Amino acid sequence: MAWISLTTDYGLADGFVAACHGMIARLAPAARIIDVTHLVPPADVRRGAAVLAQTVPYLPVGVHVAVVDPGVGTARRGIALATPGGTLVGPDNGLLPDAATALGGITAAVELTNPRWLAPEVSRTFHGRDVFAPVAARLALGAALPDAGPAVDPATLVRLPEPVLRPTPDGFTAEVLTVDHFGNVQLAAPGELLAALPARLSVAGRPAVHGRTFGDAPPGALVVHVDSAGRVAAAVRNGRAADALAVGPGDLVSVDAADRTSGDESAAAEIGPLAD
Amino acid sequence: MAWISLTTDYGLADGFVAACHGMIARLAPAARIIDVTHLVPPADVRRGAAVLAQTVPYLPVGVHVAVVDPGVGTARRGIALATPGGTLVGPDNGLLPDAATALGGITAAVELTNPRWLAPEVSRTFHGRDVFAPVAARLALGAALPDAGPAVDPATLVRLPEPVLRPTPDGFTAEVLTVDHFGNVQLAAPGELLAALPARLSVAGRPAVHGRTFGDAPPGALVVHVDSAGRVAAAVRNGRAADALAVGPGDLVSVDAADRTSGDESAAAEIGPLAD
Amino acid sequence: MAWISLTTDYGLADGFVAACHGMIARLAPAARIIDVTHLVPPADVRRGAAVLAQTVPYLPVGVHVAVVDPGVGTARRGIALATPGGTLVGPDNGLLPDAATALGGITAAVELTNPRWLAPEVSRTFHGRDVFAPVAARLALGAALPDAGPAVDPATLVRLPEPVLRPTPDGFTAEVLTVDHFGNVQLAAPGELLAALPARLSVAGRPAVHGRTFGDAPPGALVVHVDSAGRVAAAVRNGRAADALAVGPGDLVSVDAADRTSGDESAAAEIGPLAD
Repeated sequence: MAWISLTTDYGLADGFVAACHGMIARLAPAARIIDVTHLVPPADVRRGAAVLAQTVPYLPVGVHVAVVDPGVGTARRGIALATPGGTLVGPDNGLLPDAATALGGITAAVELTNPRWLAPEVSRTFHGRDVFAPVAARLALGAALPDAGPAVDPATLVRLPEPVLRPTPDGFTAEVLTVDHFGNVQLAAPGELLAALPARLSVAGRPAVHGRTFGDAPPGALVVHVDSAGRVAAAVRNGRAADALAVGPGDLVSVDAADRTSGDESAAAEIGPLAD
Repeated sequence: MAWISLTTDYGLADGFVAACHGMIARLAPAARIIDVTHLVPPADVRRGAAVLAQTVPYLPVGVHVAVVDPGVGTARRGIALATPGGTLVGPDNGLLPDAATALGGITAAVELTNPRWLAPEVSRTFHGRDVFAPVAARLALGAALPDAGPAVDPATLVRLPEPVLRPTPDGFTAEVLTVDHFGNVQLAAPGELLAALPARLSVAGRPAVHGRTFGDAPPGALVVHVDSAGRVAAAVRNGRAADALAVGPGDLVSVDAADRTSGDESAAAEIGPLAD
Repeated sequence: MAWISLTTDYGLADGFVAACHGMIARLAPAARIIDVTHLVPPADVRRGAAVLAQTVPYLPVGVHVAVVDPGVGTARRGIALATPGGTLVGPDNGLLPDAATALGGITAAVELTNPRWLAPEVSRTFHGRDVFAPVAARLALGAALPDAGPAVDPATLVRLPEPVLRPTPDGFTAEVLTVDHFGNVQLAAPGELLAALPARLSVAGRPAVHGRTFGDAPPGALVVHVDSAGRVAAAVRNGRAADALAVGPGDLVSVDAADRTSGDESAAAEIGPLAD
């Protein structure tokens, strides 16, 4: 069974995603496709990279195509990265390396230059259909990666800047990595950082509960927990933490032990009774 | 052929749905998945229950996973309900019983406690991925329901309040069950109730045609008909009844025989000529 | 391997699409389904026809169901059109003929009247589920098209008006056919029309670059190119051409050689330096 996943910023209102499915179906009809998301904001490579890296560990081993590609038609390379957990296919613009790390690291990389692997006519604006989907289909059929094009030195791959994460006297400051559909605010901080902090926290200056899940805080109150991707995240039970904190991806958020002498208790009371 | 359906409030912009697909694909790669919807409004259990109950009768017999789960991580139970038309899997918060009724009624119920049926590590916030998808995969592979956990007395299941439906002297008043993508207003009233009413109606005080389909009313006019789920519904041809009536789920709408002496004719004329 | 594609205006928030998938799964469980889009604006037959016609050439040969059907329940016919590239199934309201042309032209047409091909009970408002999906399933199973109903003379099919395309002294004026997810403005003009025009253009009175792809213009500047469907399109690198031009489907846009003596150079400078 060959699996292919697709992650794009193509949206769902045009036929772009279906054209990619169709190209795969024509070349590798037995392959099965999982759509990760097609609602990455247009050209938001960082968001695409984050969703991809957090999702691929739960997908079957296979070929993972990602296309958030504002540079399509320019000199940016098309690449495929082999990892122990599958092969990543897409543009060389920083979209793929975090997912490669999540799948065990890059074991081989190639530039997609072999015209026999691509659509007969390659458009200048739709490489999802004409380059990346055909390459994925051929890999799903068992073709050898080195045949797709020349080897690429992984050190030359375009990489996104590391998100901000720095210690503070009472905790840490981290960049917002993602805001999900429920308004949960995921920070670029591994969950282990939270273990050292006490039950009551200050998040972006707001009182918050250090909990294990949404239900550990009363409705409307902030809770900071380790989310399902293993990262520190802020949530509001029955609410949207991103709205409560007025933050979005790229913003910096501080997470600190609450100062028990500075009135945090009363501040906490303003947003709801704290859980015991 | 094993079929699994998924109904959630996860949205389509994150990788949450794909992670569920991936968990199923890893455990039961031959299973086929039908996505019912992932756009249930966050935490809207009533809406999820309505969409699920109206859709499952048209799906192949299989495992139907539904996750609208504001209580994830709390003491609420995870359950599976066997019915003649398939097995329902999800939280015990009222989401599943209406679908069970639509599939022929509950023949067995269990609480999902067997750790061998779940993901190796169960997060506190993503039971779709870590509990319900793995359970669905195992059921699709033919595992026996009683092995998933202890039997549950169906009388102890959480159930949503019955929607309002009450007779009036000239018709009935019913709660709005759903508003669909086209703005059609579906009432918590079986279609048979409409048969006793005449050709001209008053709906929420507005004149309406008692028709069989949208086309039985002129453009812009209200028509009340039996919808494709067998319920009484209000529609506007080439328009949105929910906007025309300014109602949404949970609101009460009266459907009555029009009083032929009270000026309804002229009121009808205001919104368009009535069909003969 | 039997393939079925679905294109509708059903949206993704209700169970309508899943009910169609379910009807197909029950009748033809081995058939594979590709969702083209379900976000055609409600009742926008022209938009549905454009997306369908541009996508089907990239799908595997199969059955292509399209349902944008404001006349459901009226006397409009349900039809199936055989072509060299597959069979189209849907309402006779102009939705299908352009796709038939894209697939090689109509070789046979029938009206879907055989009740044995349909659901046991056909609702008056949901022919996607009760008529078109079952017909697609039977075709996917290999049933013979003439058994679905009587032959239809293709000359009697409802057709949409031809979009406007007319020459001008310095270029052409064309109707906007589609605006895609990225705000690209696709015109009802074949790409060949662009070849005769020079490097600098005037589009709807705005200076634009005649390029091969987005990257041929500086950020924020208009570029006119041949898009991935082979049509003339206006784009803005890192922007939305539809917003920049303030146009939408059905509007007319002129594309002309820029008058080098009239100040276009300075106008171009206003929106960014031109590419060499």
